[in-house]
Amino acid sequence: MLKPLGSRVIIERKEQEQTTKSGIVLTDSAKEKSNEGVVIAVGSGRVLDNGEKIAPEVKEGDTVVFQEYTGTEVKRGDETYLILNEEDLLAIIEK
Amino acid sequence: MLKPLGSRVIIERKEQEQTTKSGIVLTDSAKEKSNEGVVIAVGSGRVLDNGEKIAPEVKEGDTVVFQEYTGTEVKRGDETYLILNEEDLLAIIEK
Amino acid sequence: MLKPLGSRVIIERKEQEQTTKSGIVLTDSAKEKSNEGVVIAVGSGRVLDNGEKIAPEVKEGDTVVFQEYTGTEVKRGDETYLILNEEDLLAIIEK
Amino acid sequence: MLKPLGSRVIIERKEQEQTTKSGIVLTDSAKEKSNEGVVIAVGSGRVLDNGEKIAPEVKEGDTVVFQEYTGTEVKRGDETYLILNEEDLLAIIEK
Amino acid sequence: MLKPLGSRVIIERKEQEQTTKSGIVLTDSAKEKSNEGVVIAVGSGRVLDNGEKIAPEVKEGDTVVFQEYTGTEVKRGDETYLILNEEDLLAIIEK
Amino acid sequence: MLKPLGSRVIIERKEQEQTTKSGIVLTDSAKEKSNEGVVIAVGSGRVLDNGEKIAPEVKEGDTVVFQEYTGTEVKRGDETYLILNEEDLLAIIEK
Amino acid sequence: MLKPLGSRVIIERKEQEQTTKSGIVLTDSAKEKSNEGVVIAVGSGRVLDNGEKIAPEVKEGDTVVFQEYTGTEVKRGDETYLILNEEDLLAIIEK
Repeated sequence: MLKPLGSRVIIERKEQEQTTKSGIVLTDSAKEKSNEGVVIAVGSGRVLDNGEKIAPEVKEGDTVVFQEYTGTEVKRGDETYLILNEEDLLAIIEK
Repeated sequence: MLKPLGSRVIIERKEQEQTTKSGIVLTDSAKEKSNEGVVIAVGSGRVLDNGEKIAPEVKEGDTVVFQEYTGTEVKRGDETYLILNEEDLLAIIEK
Repeated sequence: MLKPLGSRVIIERKEQEQTTKSGIVLTDSAKEKSNEGVVIAVGSGRVLDNGEKIAPEVKEGDTVVFQEYTGTEVKRGDETYLILNEEDLLAIIEK
Repeated sequence: MLKPLGSRVIIERKEQEQTTKSGIVLTDSAKEKSNEGVVIAVGSGRVLDNGEKIAPEVKEGDTVVFQEYTGTEVKRGDETYLILNEEDLLAIIEK
Repeated sequence: MLKPLGSRVIIERKEQEQTTKSGIVLTDSAKEKSNEGVVIAVGSGRVLDNGEKIAPEVKEGDTVVFQEYTGTEVKRGDETYLILNEEDLLAIIEK
Repeated sequence: MLKPLGSRVIIERKEQEQTTKSGIVLTDSAKEKSNEGVVIAVGSGRVLDNGEKIAPEVKEGDTVVFQEYTGTEVKRGDETYLILNEEDLLAIIEK
Repeated sequence: MLKPLGSRVIIERKEQEQTTKSGIVLTDSAKEKSNEGVVIAVGSGRVLDNGEKIAPEVKEGDTVVFQEYTGTEVKRGDETYLILNEEDLLAIIEK
């Protein structure tokens, strides 16, 4: 299990069924990577210059939209996770 | 529904009827993107170095002008929204 | 009407009658843009790291000199305004 | 023995048995470097602008994931260690 | 009259009689611009992060040396002034 | 004698006997520069934004590892020293 | 006389008798510029974010080593001085 440090958040990308306009389902390598995902774990938060710790605004299980082309991918077994800074999360998708 | 995080603001771009000087209505791909829009949702605000949270100056429903070439586009169903930092908003358009 | 946000200031550029040394009045496209203008509206000011809000030093109606090549132009009807950060204003022109 | 300074952390990279898809075990020079490792030693922590010292979130013996392409390698005898800033550590791998 | 804003200072460059080694007085276009000048006006000063305003160290009439290749030139009638940040002033020339 | 200023530290690089794999001792010009050295002198420390002075973590006589490709070399008589910022020191080598 | 502003320090470079290995004394244009000098005057110091003024660590008459390729040269009569930020001074040379 991965326990994120500081203001890091661990995300599992949401799979996107990607079909071209003409209806063809795309194979893995042709898919664009989604910038939506589910929060798997959150760090303890970032420390302000006055020493105060700010708890993350997101929690485990939240579905989020995040900044593209950022973060570090890590593989654990068959899964690939994305480790981001909390500030790279843009919005929570509520249902 | 999208709930913006921190100092993020969600905008729906204002459609611009774009006609050339000779009166031809432009198709979608030829249109310039407008940098005006309506605020759909606002985050809880940014946290200062002293731990204080500053509420955004804009609210849902405000029509705003924003900095061009910034932010992240997200699609929800048929709509495309723009997620910006509050500091990329320049002015409110009042009527 | 445009209401600037934060430390933004809205400026209307001063028209410059531009004549070449030999006395020819220049057409629009050949004119250099002036970096003088009149303040149309000011934002509520910038927020310091200690949470204090600093009111702008300029007010509506002030004629100012500003840093060149900065700011965002916005069109409202026939007018073009310039939205700047207050820190891009250099001096007030007093009469 | 190496005693890291300030917010530095010393890491021993985890060896990865790397086999190609067809089952061939790779020689040293063909291996990709792992970005997982074990914390060997931690510094006393970073000093905030208010003079407070923040103890590191990791401790000796923790297995961690770190940012790639960062840090300085140092050789002590036969071992190669990696000295990183604590902020380049992303997550602790718990078992 | 120009009233500088914030930490801005207005300078009138000192004319330099420039003669080549062989004694030829240089025309305007061949002169190097001097980085010495006289302070014409000073702003109210810069605001620190704690809200305190720091009055400028220079005053009207001071002759100063300033950093080259910085600032904005403004023309008022026949005069050209230079608007600088106070931090671009290096030293006062005392007599 | 050199007395470092602020957060500066003076280092004497450790000589490395460098031999190629085939046993040839390298001449001066072919040697790689070591990034280990002995602390010769330390400054009084850096000043935080709150005015507090933070004493350096290292002391005269410590053997240290430092960031490569940084600092300024100074010659005093026959010796060449390296002046670094304390933050470019990575770890103390303890025996 | 030059009175440095803020954290500026005025230095007079130390002349270096430069001779090639074969004993030839170099003319002015072939000399490398020394990065040692004598402090001629110091400013009142830099202002911290909390408004506190930090007096410089060096004083008139100190011989110092400074960072190369920085600062602004000013000519007063026959002398050329170098105006630096105090932070570009590396060490005091004590005798």
